[in-house]
Amino acid sequence: MQLGILGAGAVSRAVASLAIENGHTVTALADSKSAVVNSNGVDIESAFKRKELEGTIGDLEVDEAVEGSYEALIEVTPTTINSAEPAFSHVKTALERNRHVVLGNKAPLAERYGDVRALEQESKGTVKFGATIGGTMPMLSTIRDFGSDQITGIRGAFDSRSNFILSRMAAEGLDYEHVLAEAEEIGVIEGESSFDVEGIETALTCSILANVLAEPGNEFSLEDVTVKGIDQIPSSTLKLAREDGQTVRLIGEIRNDQIRVEPRLVSEDKALAVTNLRTVAQLETKHADLTTLSGNGSSKDAIATALLRDIHQLEYSQ
Amino acid sequence: MQLGILGAGAVSRAVASLAIENGHTVTALADSKSAVVNSNGVDIESAFKRKELEGTIGDLEVDEAVEGSYEALIEVTPTTINSAEPAFSHVKTALERNRHVVLGNKAPLAERYGDVRALEQESKGTVKFGATIGGTMPMLSTIRDFGSDQITGIRGAFDSRSNFILSRMAAEGLDYEHVLAEAEEIGVIEGESSFDVEGIETALTCSILANVLAEPGNEFSLEDVTVKGIDQIPSSTLKLAREDGQTVRLIGEIRNDQIRVEPRLVSEDKALAVTNLRTVAQLETKHADLTTLSGNGSSKDAIATALLRDIHQLEYSQ
Repeated sequence: MQLGILGAGAVSRAVASLAIENGHTVTALADSKSAVVNSNGVDIESAFKRKELEGTIGDLEVDEAVEGSYEALIEVTPTTINSAEPAFSHVKTALERNRHVVLGNKAPLAERYGDVRALEQESKGTVKFGATIGGTMPMLSTIRDFGSDQITGIRGAFDSRSNFILSRMAAEGLDYEHVLAEAEEIGVIEGESSFDVEGIETALTCSILANVLAEPGNEFSLEDVTVKGIDQIPSSTLKLAREDGQTVRLIGEIRNDQIRVEPRLVSEDKALAVTNLRTVAQLETKHADLTTLSGNGSSKDAIATALLRDIHQLEYSQ
Repeated sequence: MQLGILGAGAVSRAVASLAIENGHTVTALADSKSAVVNSNGVDIESAFKRKELEGTIGDLEVDEAVEGSYEALIEVTPTTINSAEPAFSHVKTALERNRHVVLGNKAPLAERYGDVRALEQESKGTVKFGATIGGTMPMLSTIRDFGSDQITGIRGAFDSRSNFILSRMAAEGLDYEHVLAEAEEIGVIEGESSFDVEGIETALTCSILANVLAEPGNEFSLEDVTVKGIDQIPSSTLKLAREDGQTVRLIGEIRNDQIRVEPRLVSEDKALAVTNLRTVAQLETKHADLTTLSGNGSSKDAIATALLRDIHQLEYSQ
């Protein structure tokens, strides 16, 4: 498939090389201020090398990539809340051009679900967004297959960085700042983490999930989520919890149209207490109790694999 | 959707009532020797009551159900290995009549995968079989979405009864016979368990999984599976394992076209050590490590929910 990729971070690079490995062609690629297009295939190595050396990925304007030649547009620019711009406009343009959209960026569907769905309705293109809710965990297909009316609630420890930090704090008796600094130093956590530890990433995931479960017209955005992060938890709390066979995880939960994200006590030996960079989600069904999904968190390769899965879905459902 | 149901055990009853609750109509229903059909909807309560009191579910021959009026045939007769009959013939007739088939019975696809697929190829009907490999765990859709070439191996503790028995043996220090007898007495385990504890159920699941992963023409059946059950494990083994933070589970694994089912040591605090009647599967992907799925085992309501999910897939993919 011919792919346009917007965004030039670690995930973009991982998805570009994985796409090529799987027989796709990257025909357009943009960072936040420049672009390169080539209908025979962009030279990915050169483009990212140029980005490193010169700060721009190509000579063209970003719009020339958005309006370039591709069958599906992969949107992996940095997440921006409220307007979800410029990602939302990218999605809009691609759909108006009857192209498919594959989202890595959570914001368009977390903040403007109804708008995106309305654009999709008018388009010959389809919006795939499995990667935005749980990465490689097959959340979206599982909800769709059961039927959203069969799902009575969803909860999970969706944020791999928070899981890593909390499991290290508990295991080593260390403070939040100490663990975060250490994780950044050894490269387990790269780039900005404030959206993770403040619960915003989890809230965005949960907003999308709530939209998927909701009746049409009943729309959720970040505003509707009660959010509390993990950045105020002292290591003493984790120590106390541990004495009782418990630990703390940043749990997102959707139930009865209520969405809340907050640190909660979970049993140390139960499914929600995932360690390291793993993530977990539990879907509660009307008649079959819980279905639990767990994935390899948000490493760039895991997100790239999830995006490739969503592209693969586009291919075989056509 | 108009549904025919073959089989009159606990799963049949559960799927019939769940189907009706979800707006479907059961238009044909058969046990092993009799049948009832009604294009306006069979009276399920009366049929199963008659089965209890008189031993037959209706006045007609089974063939009249198989050849009756339905859009999808749900095959939940007892599993038979080798020829997979009479289930295979039921599937064949339904597909030749251009009807869909939803399998709860593992045997047709575990023993005669190529034959079923060839019949499906010639039919306007589709075969859905997600329930046969992992029940409510979304195994099939996850493999399909990633693409089977992305999956490098699958392993799991697929058999809920074996999981229950082994976790009780470890927790209570009891012997196999004692735990099984107790589980039967309190109704946790109903009906025949030999296929479970001998590893046959797991082997059938793994045979189907291997067929899903295999290149066309490279077909597997029960004969290709190395099988060892849990019926010879003394409680002392579990005790020894426990001293080392480990326990034993009946693990099925598919890797490099090899399928083996055997009791194996697993870490007590890791995902494979599911307790009670839960089941777990781990899909190893090329670039995203493990995706773990876990479900509520083989209770009749869980299997019925999985079958309904597969019917739901038929509806929205048409």
